[in-house]
Amino acid sequence: MTDPAPKIGAVLETAIYVDDLSRAGRFYEETLGLAPMLRDARMWAFDCGPGSVLLAFLRGATAETLHLPGGEIPPHEGMGRLHFALAIAAADLGAWEARLAGLGVAIEARMNWPRGGKSLYFRDPDHNLVELATPGLWANY
Amino acid sequence: MTDPAPKIGAVLETAIYVDDLSRAGRFYEETLGLAPMLRDARMWAFDCGPGSVLLAFLRGATAETLHLPGGEIPPHEGMGRLHFALAIAAADLGAWEARLAGLGVAIEARMNWPRGGKSLYFRDPDHNLVELATPGLWANY
Repeated sequence: MTDPAPKIGAVLETAIYVDDLSRAGRFYEETLGLAPMLRDARMWAFDCGPGSVLLAFLRGATAETLHLPGGEIPPHEGMGRLHFALAIAAADLGAWEARLAGLGVAIEARMNWPRGGKSLYFRDPDHNLVELATPGLWANY
Repeated sequence: MTDPAPKIGAVLETAIYVDDLSRAGRFYEETLGLAPMLRDARMWAFDCGPGSVLLAFLRGATAETLHLPGGEIPPHEGMGRLHFALAIAAADLGAWEARLAGLGVAIEARMNWPRGGKSLYFRDPDHNLVELATPGLWANY
């Protein structure tokens, strides 16, 4: 028998892979209003709220082990149109719709979830599928 | 000029793509102790803490628009060895090391971050790069 696992607190980092870091960075910083915490030739990291980080990696730049003074980061990489969701307040849904329309970002789809939450879906410049979701989607949200 | 964006609260969902949902599901449920909130032929969704969800999609099952009573979910898909990180308490790092060793999950790398946080890296059954990270990694964590 295996003991119960220690507790997982949250998803800390979600990662996407992009062909142009500056182009993706502008989108997440200017359109979505996320503050960069780190910008280098390999990645941008965005503050998505306390203990919550979006990483945008330059495609191809993470395919080899990264050796750092404190240890190593093993290889990873992604292709395709990845998907992730960001939490927004229900009261901000209309403002987000207006903002995206004003900035020329097409809403590709909308969802009304059985628990009452609502989602907007749109693409980033690399065709990753971004979702903004209000509470009432999952049993834990 | 564009008004400031409404606030993003957190990353709500991070997604991986797997070749065998049951195999991946067992790994995340039994090894990492994450409770499934949804299991169907297309995806498993895991509770990672309040407002924090890991989605494992069957590779290929999300390549077409999904029509639901409440709206639509646009296509997305991923290939490669994706990366994400889960937050753990510093006090649990040793228990996680022991648990992973006991379950035959090889630690592929470790990092000691300049701010004091520590990370463990290992692979899921589909070779996605999973990180367990203690506080002291980012400016917001």
